[in-house]
Amino acid sequence: MRTLLLLTVSLSVLLGALAQQPHPCKAPPYLEGKLFVLFPEGHTTLFEQFAYDAVEERIRVVASIKHDSQEMIEDRLLFFRERFYYEIHYHNKSCVKTPFDAQFNPIQIPHDAHHQAQFVLGSLSAPAEGLLVNSWVGYIPETKANYSMTFTEFGCIPITILTTDEKKDHFFSSFFDLVVGLENPEVFIPPSFCTSAKVVERKDGKVADFFSALR
Amino acid sequence: MRTLLLLTVSLSVLLGALAQQPHPCKAPPYLEGKLFVLFPEGHTTLFEQFAYDAVEERIRVVASIKHDSQEMIEDRLLFFRERFYYEIHYHNKSCVKTPFDAQFNPIQIPHDAHHQAQFVLGSLSAPAEGLLVNSWVGYIPETKANYSMTFTEFGCIPITILTTDEKKDHFFSSFFDLVVGLENPEVFIPPSFCTSAKVVERKDGKVADFFSALR
Repeated sequence: MRTLLLLTVSLSVLLGALAQQPHPCKAPPYLEGKLFVLFPEGHTTLFEQFAYDAVEERIRVVASIKHDSQEMIEDRLLFFRERFYYEIHYHNKSCVKTPFDAQFNPIQIPHDAHHQAQFVLGSLSAPAEGLLVNSWVGYIPETKANYSMTFTEFGCIPITILTTDEKKDHFFSSFFDLVVGLENPEVFIPPSFCTSAKVVERKDGKVADFFSALR
Repeated sequence: MRTLLLLTVSLSVLLGALAQQPHPCKAPPYLEGKLFVLFPEGHTTLFEQFAYDAVEERIRVVASIKHDSQEMIEDRLLFFRERFYYEIHYHNKSCVKTPFDAQFNPIQIPHDAHHQAQFVLGSLSAPAEGLLVNSWVGYIPETKANYSMTFTEFGCIPITILTTDEKKDHFFSSFFDLVVGLENPEVFIPPSFCTSAKVVERKDGKVADFFSALR
């Protein structure tokens, strides 16, 4: 009897400890929000509004890319499963269809990421004054890049992602105004004038993920 | 009667609009927390644990300053009203008293700051997944520096402060794990061995505020 009790207590202590340890998580499958990306050397910034569907593997982004004083607006609808994206130009009702070959990388903490710290942005002294987050670090062999990611403890919502490539160049991405769900799923339906879209091959052929799709 | 009704309606619309506009705010007078500062060029970082008392105008900081691979630990107790600070060395029970001449600048949004944006870190789609914050920008003529500050909408808790000086050097400060109140007010009482502290003048004499006190 005593052995059984001891075993039960030990097991619950162990389970309690395991439960406390943050685990890599995946962001909700449907997300809408904004993203700010600061490119190395600080000359280029990207500000985008996006809708993300990890179930059908499609992303819609309207991005404003600033390079020094030049600004460019791009509206793209990416279908990762079908391996092409549309570049949509409403001003002249034209559309360009570009094939690309890339795996869909959902917004998530990689399974082999190392938990760095749990901390509070702001304060938990009163409601609505703070946010409990976790930071994770790791290395991606394919791109030879180190990353540091901060996601919320509850809901696995991305906050910041910093990647540092081989050349020690930093790419800093900051997410905000995220909404779980899709306010208007029609953003994934291409406008009618895209049915006659011209097919244009990408020069570099590189669309590795969510971020590089816009570079 | 109709005029009175119209006036009442107009007044409440105006007051409603004014109430919605975020106003510069002051952080709580007692705070404890952590601060990370990234100095220009990225070679120097400062990580500190601090206790802040804006009523008595005193700050206690234990800071770890990393410059490339060198690390230095500093423990300081600053009395802004009395215009001196102690540098405390527990390892050999010694203490250095240094006079300084600087105004106490409380943690706050300057009155003439310009409201830039209100945004959510994370998501407000579910409780504990997001934080509503405001960003403010402005210019400090004394130090010829531009600043960009992010504080929580509720509670006026600092999140980040970015200052850019004349030379376009960026100082990025990030606050976290803040607690409103003082867990142990005794941190402001100098250890007994400080009564016989040696007085040493600062070479540069510059202690302008909360941050420069540590540079």
